[in-house]
Amino acid sequence: MAKTNAGNFFEDYKIGQVIKHAVPRTVSGGERAMYHALYPARHALYSSDEFARASGLPASPMDDLITFHTVFGKTVPDVSLNAVANLGYGEGKFLKPIYPGDTLRSESEVIGLKQNSNGKSGVVYVRTRGLNQNDEAVLEYVRWVMVRKRDLDAPAPETVLPDLAKVVDPADLVIPEGLDFTNYDFDLAGESHRWGDYEVGETIDHVDGVTIEEAEHMIATRLWQNTAKVHFDATFRPDGQRLIYGGHVISMARALSFNGLANAQMIVGLNGGAHANPCFSGDTVKAWTEVLDKAETSAPGVGAVRLRLVATKAGAEPFALKGEDGKYLPDVLLDLDYWALMPL
Amino acid sequence: MAKTNAGNFFEDYKIGQVIKHAVPRTVSGGERAMYHALYPARHALYSSDEFARASGLPASPMDDLITFHTVFGKTVPDVSLNAVANLGYGEGKFLKPIYPGDTLRSESEVIGLKQNSNGKSGVVYVRTRGLNQNDEAVLEYVRWVMVRKRDLDAPAPETVLPDLAKVVDPADLVIPEGLDFTNYDFDLAGESHRWGDYEVGETIDHVDGVTIEEAEHMIATRLWQNTAKVHFDATFRPDGQRLIYGGHVISMARALSFNGLANAQMIVGLNGGAHANPCFSGDTVKAWTEVLDKAETSAPGVGAVRLRLVATKAGAEPFALKGEDGKYLPDVLLDLDYWALMPL
Amino acid sequence: MAKTNAGNFFEDYKIGQVIKHAVPRTVSGGERAMYHALYPARHALYSSDEFARASGLPASPMDDLITFHTVFGKTVPDVSLNAVANLGYGEGKFLKPIYPGDTLRSESEVIGLKQNSNGKSGVVYVRTRGLNQNDEAVLEYVRWVMVRKRDLDAPAPETVLPDLAKVVDPADLVIPEGLDFTNYDFDLAGESHRWGDYEVGETIDHVDGVTIEEAEHMIATRLWQNTAKVHFDATFRPDGQRLIYGGHVISMARALSFNGLANAQMIVGLNGGAHANPCFSGDTVKAWTEVLDKAETSAPGVGAVRLRLVATKAGAEPFALKGEDGKYLPDVLLDLDYWALMPL
Repeated sequence: MAKTNAGNFFEDYKIGQVIKHAVPRTVSGGERAMYHALYPARHALYSSDEFARASGLPASPMDDLITFHTVFGKTVPDVSLNAVANLGYGEGKFLKPIYPGDTLRSESEVIGLKQNSNGKSGVVYVRTRGLNQNDEAVLEYVRWVMVRKRDLDAPAPETVLPDLAKVVDPADLVIPEGLDFTNYDFDLAGESHRWGDYEVGETIDHVDGVTIEEAEHMIATRLWQNTAKVHFDATFRPDGQRLIYGGHVISMARALSFNGLANAQMIVGLNGGAHANPCFSGDTVKAWTEVLDKAETSAPGVGAVRLRLVATKAGAEPFALKGEDGKYLPDVLLDLDYWALMPL
Repeated sequence: MAKTNAGNFFEDYKIGQVIKHAVPRTVSGGERAMYHALYPARHALYSSDEFARASGLPASPMDDLITFHTVFGKTVPDVSLNAVANLGYGEGKFLKPIYPGDTLRSESEVIGLKQNSNGKSGVVYVRTRGLNQNDEAVLEYVRWVMVRKRDLDAPAPETVLPDLAKVVDPADLVIPEGLDFTNYDFDLAGESHRWGDYEVGETIDHVDGVTIEEAEHMIATRLWQNTAKVHFDATFRPDGQRLIYGGHVISMARALSFNGLANAQMIVGLNGGAHANPCFSGDTVKAWTEVLDKAETSAPGVGAVRLRLVATKAGAEPFALKGEDGKYLPDVLLDLDYWALMPL
Repeated sequence: MAKTNAGNFFEDYKIGQVIKHAVPRTVSGGERAMYHALYPARHALYSSDEFARASGLPASPMDDLITFHTVFGKTVPDVSLNAVANLGYGEGKFLKPIYPGDTLRSESEVIGLKQNSNGKSGVVYVRTRGLNQNDEAVLEYVRWVMVRKRDLDAPAPETVLPDLAKVVDPADLVIPEGLDFTNYDFDLAGESHRWGDYEVGETIDHVDGVTIEEAEHMIATRLWQNTAKVHFDATFRPDGQRLIYGGHVISMARALSFNGLANAQMIVGLNGGAHANPCFSGDTVKAWTEVLDKAETSAPGVGAVRLRLVATKAGAEPFALKGEDGKYLPDVLLDLDYWALMPL
């Protein structure tokens, strides 16, 4: 019996199938310290227990993207080991903050299948949920990937395409229990701009840039137990380059966006996302944001903003996303659409 | 009085001498997070408090190799600062898991001495023990190194060669108190192969590879307070290369072996080990395993496997260890012989 | 309204102005583990809870330079974003050890202003204090930087130059409550040299060297939430080099000084410091110390030593600091003057 994991191929997935992913993980202050060392993350709610308590939470939660990466990383061996392309994300909701001492695991349900017309691969849609040690869901999102077939003669499954919302309805966003920004300290948070200061259509250049090193993206990617070899093995690709995990670019761009969005504290919804172009060591990542929408929430002093966060390589034209052909410009790395919570 | 440590030379060691090594260290979730970020370590027992509790332990212990590196690192200034070569390990036993909050220190007893015929150096055998804050031994192993003489005219000591077991007898392996794999969750652990699925003589190619970066091996090696300058100072060797700490290769290979040995959870015995060839930044490390032996244990649901773990550079011939001359092949980095515990 | 922080310019500072810096931060064992992985830090008091308890403290405190970097990092966006040069430090006192779980914030008072004769910039003196979650001061120091003017026509402020002590009077050093070195274990600490073994004027070559990597200095600098882009963005300087945060060199030199000063456990005073020349990735950092002064303290078994810690590049002439022109030699990176506590 072969002992190593060959991953799943397109014909291995069935609608309704639930995959229980390995390996559960208990997080601690160690993961937080590493996150803050790998990305210029400064949002006060995730940096200070005191600030979090003044905002109605029991302590400073782990950064939302730690939850995302931890949950996502576990799905890689089952979902994307034989993926040709990571096509998209949607319907993402952060359901509960996680704290040092919590243990996370992941499971995914297959909700869509469509074989490609070439008969060599197909698109698999999974809804992934992250669960804590009390079996409470902390995060859910849909992801779709193009996966190779093992056996080209395997019959095509019935096509099932999930009906996915383009945007998470703000009424469906889950505000952490107790969250209250009425006593928000803007000095400690780093900027004075509140929810009312942002306008739909406004764009913000986050100014700062970070040049990416091999050691850093590998340390980060391993931290999430994402072991896809394309990120680690320089002998794997013919060009000798290690492809950087898309989530590394997401976290880098989100952290850079502090400069101009210091008060966009919590990520609560993930409407969509595309890794527009690959990122490699030596690239300098910069970021800009467009305010897409705003919404009120039921929590005291808390508003929601829908933001397009774009990561580019240094030198990219400001605020330029796609060319006349509708395709992403070559210097664009990431186009992410998310909901965040801000003080009113 | 010279204030800096010149290390011990061959003539400084006496049979029966006990060396109390500096510096004690309290470990936390921080060391665990870093270990999981530096190596693709995924064994569930070391990743999740919940999984560890379901296996009868009070919480997730620190990875066994964290214990090994921490104990080993402390011996470097006293044992191997003037070493010409690290010759071997043997009779290693992990005696007690360590947990966040534990404090480790090390001491070594000189158990063997043999001056080389050239009169310039000699072999020193030490039995090293790691102790926790309650003075309980957590690890012991024998190591022998070739050490230079300071004074070539110093008289040769009486030759004493310890009688070392080739293999730790499985009856002598120490199973952690309470360990019980009868409710083992193979889905969460990542693979379905149990003790009964492995056959003596079986070989497993662990498939994945990791290309090593300077920053990573230095971060790892410092974490264990191993300060041998050959690992850190690019001006030290004439070729300008920093030699990678052999323990970095051990941890990398062990972590890579998850793919095929996800259920070889705990390391309990270290029968022997050789660093076959030096490893440098830019090398891509891969690993394979040969099952050498199997044994039953007294713990419920727990079996032991004796494994040869071999690390190679990418491109090495599969499962090839030594040439016709009996010497390690040039692409072989590590040949490690250990006992691990698996679910029956 | 522009949302990003353009930083303060010379004309923005007023004598007596108090700046409350963002972002507060709760530290944990994670920050300690990273510090010990990034620097060869081995001082026993900061490594072992047991050793610290035997010295009268409740547990092992965070390294003093973690406190310094954390407090300092917060001041960067308000004080040195538009700085042309970091001119000096003085009157630094460590007032209270910090422990995992503590939350730090910083505030600075403007205590000196002097416009340069060219009218384009000026020197700003601030006294910065680090505070814990109980509003207790844990550190204070003075720093002066040269800052650009935004508007060259802005009128020059009245010149105010603070009267700064050249050296912190040893009677003003704050010894942590309970500190007691009468049962100090020199074996566990790593060296036998006590306070009485050091003579004023004595010099110590710390022997070891570390070659600096981009990934490491960026990880370290981000850990302190210091986001000055010159450290991270390779497209920022015309030469494509990332300037290394001066504090990285301070911590590296202090950690290297363990070899010869293993018992100089706690930093309690910072008399002055100069970053003599810039440091870049690829430089190999070495260090030497000159004993400048000694003093008794009121704590049992505890003496104070005043030390000049000099970091150089490998290959620098031993113990050479300045040329005949009174300027620092080109291979000198750091000249730091501090008080440390040692066992009598």
